[in-house]
Amino acid sequence: MTNWTLAARAAKMNPSVIREILKVTEKPGIISLAGGLPSPKTFPVDAFAKACEVVLGHDGAAALQYAASEGYAPLREAIADLLPWNVDPDQVLITTGSQQALDLIAKVLIDEGSRVLVETPTYLGALQAFTPMEPQVVAVDSDDEGVLVDDLAAKVGSGADKARFLYVLPNFQNPTGRTMSESRRAALVEKAAQLGLPLVEDNPYGDLWFDNPPPAPLTARNPEGCIYMGSFSKVLAPGLRLGYVIAPKAVFPKLLQAKQAADLHTPGFNQRMVSEVMKGGFLDRHVPTIRALYKHQRDAMLEALEREMAGLDVQWNTPQGGMFLWLRLPAGMRAIELLPQAVERNVAFVPGAAFYADNADPRTLRLSFVTASSAQINTGIGALAAAIRASASPR
Amino acid sequence: MTNWTLAARAAKMNPSVIREILKVTEKPGIISLAGGLPSPKTFPVDAFAKACEVVLGHDGAAALQYAASEGYAPLREAIADLLPWNVDPDQVLITTGSQQALDLIAKVLIDEGSRVLVETPTYLGALQAFTPMEPQVVAVDSDDEGVLVDDLAAKVGSGADKARFLYVLPNFQNPTGRTMSESRRAALVEKAAQLGLPLVEDNPYGDLWFDNPPPAPLTARNPEGCIYMGSFSKVLAPGLRLGYVIAPKAVFPKLLQAKQAADLHTPGFNQRMVSEVMKGGFLDRHVPTIRALYKHQRDAMLEALEREMAGLDVQWNTPQGGMFLWLRLPAGMRAIELLPQAVERNVAFVPGAAFYADNADPRTLRLSFVTASSAQINTGIGALAAAIRASASPR
Repeated sequence: MTNWTLAARAAKMNPSVIREILKVTEKPGIISLAGGLPSPKTFPVDAFAKACEVVLGHDGAAALQYAASEGYAPLREAIADLLPWNVDPDQVLITTGSQQALDLIAKVLIDEGSRVLVETPTYLGALQAFTPMEPQVVAVDSDDEGVLVDDLAAKVGSGADKARFLYVLPNFQNPTGRTMSESRRAALVEKAAQLGLPLVEDNPYGDLWFDNPPPAPLTARNPEGCIYMGSFSKVLAPGLRLGYVIAPKAVFPKLLQAKQAADLHTPGFNQRMVSEVMKGGFLDRHVPTIRALYKHQRDAMLEALEREMAGLDVQWNTPQGGMFLWLRLPAGMRAIELLPQAVERNVAFVPGAAFYADNADPRTLRLSFVTASSAQINTGIGALAAAIRASASPR
Repeated sequence: MTNWTLAARAAKMNPSVIREILKVTEKPGIISLAGGLPSPKTFPVDAFAKACEVVLGHDGAAALQYAASEGYAPLREAIADLLPWNVDPDQVLITTGSQQALDLIAKVLIDEGSRVLVETPTYLGALQAFTPMEPQVVAVDSDDEGVLVDDLAAKVGSGADKARFLYVLPNFQNPTGRTMSESRRAALVEKAAQLGLPLVEDNPYGDLWFDNPPPAPLTARNPEGCIYMGSFSKVLAPGLRLGYVIAPKAVFPKLLQAKQAADLHTPGFNQRMVSEVMKGGFLDRHVPTIRALYKHQRDAMLEALEREMAGLDVQWNTPQGGMFLWLRLPAGMRAIELLPQAVERNVAFVPGAAFYADNADPRTLRLSFVTASSAQINTGIGALAAAIRASASPR
């Protein structure tokens, strides 16, 4: 008998709670407000088809060959140009989705037992990417404006137990949809610099603002103290798996070596496709159409919530961009227990507890307003309200 | 000042020696027999262009959306059908190149200090992928037929120090071009089963045979005791980054969780492209053209070696497939010292020492016969012989 001895870290790895929940909710006719899928209406299929022709017609052999681990030079330059601070293209590392950036950062910055700080709640995929490197994840208390700077100072640790970094998602955060205010950003960057604490800033949703752009990134305020992650998944399409990381010289070479060992390089074909599509200011024309669609659907969700949740002790926020809204159920109600009753009524959501590193608030849940249509959102929120009402009433 | 504390593993990570060597050899007019790049003549650009049209025309939204971490179901089925033993598509995990399979295997099977066995010499990229998990890599003595089974038994270790697996590349191995014989395969699989030792079989080159197919894979002989890795990089194109791993139930779920954390999934667009190209038996028509080209170029290299190395105490093998030939310099000569003299004469190779986990043979070097044309191979081998002659003669 072959003796398959698994690494200790394998025992800590788990299937995504969300993925397991989504399986439960996969029944015909269900309205899913659970997943984090961009609306396929926003995928510029024709532009990609044209880009395919150009790339394979003019540069096919290079697009299909092995390539540099850093990424395709014109794409690295285009990304540096997109960003609102002075970025050297040599600092840009192309990754296979920004999920890979989290994996590389974990490999380069986390030892077994290292303290790593996250928001409350935070992106589940980040926790999954960090877990194989076996950190001690510590949640920093957060309010509607983001992490609380005093709690950060209290939890940063010292000596060998000093936190390696704070992972933070300032714009239209997954899962809460909240945005870090200008004053909180300023205070956070100042405090982190005082503490000598690196920041890992994840910004997949920043371009999806509805009325006003969010404040400047944290990294723009202190580039040598931050790693910045971006993605084309929400402004072009996730299926190409194209993300990037901007890293200071102190860590870039090691991220690059980790990248090379992880998958040699991100597909050169995909990098050229996106580089080609971006030419001539395409994103400047395309992204506003995504903003308009998602704003319309957020509004539909807010209106449906106002109407359907009337008389229920339910709270929710008003996201200023992105894909998600955060809802809090009446006292004593638990989202995980509500889910099967909602699914019975043909609507699905993600219980918020999945997104907490510790001390989960069982009353919270995440709703996506981008995958379902406005009409489906209306029906779905009605069904959710019915489930809450049934659950709240004495049995 | 921000305090960037790197993980201990980061200090063990290094830039690829080959990559550094290739930089030195990047001068205009040089004939590179160094790199491991498939010939771009073999890339089916037109077939990919047609596949792009079909995929984006008929299935664009799904191809550009997030997808399952396991991979695209029709591609998993096509891969199971390709393989010469009974493979359940549920055992197939699509990876971002087979390099990623190495990364996932390392995460799931290697603890810090775990003993891991490799051939002598072995694929450098595997050593790079394993390094971040901090194994103790032990080289098993090997001859022209592959690993020596008695030395395997001697080095397998016991108790907590028992090897987690043997990594082996039986067909037209990188770097040596050698192939494990039928009798050695049988003996190895039997011994590994006796020892309870898992085998990790890497087979990127197996389809590139010249006169006869290689013997059956190790995994076909004991599927529950082996992880098998394959790739489309050498039969279609490396720039799409498409590989796969076949794993038994004892490890598949953990590899899948590691995959999800690493990059969510391999680009769905690329998976559909390859799935589309493969339809109608495309590989059965296409791969023989690659075999013929590479055989022709191997013959050109062998003829040039016979002619140019006459009178020199230089040895080389006759690869029966793949991309590489292994050469041994006269006694006392070191490949690393010969390289600058070869580059002066406009030819480059990779010193063999890069490929040894320990006890490197400094006289060895790797030559690729696939990237350069037959005419370039002729010129390049002439230049290499001149460098050896100059180096061997008393100064």
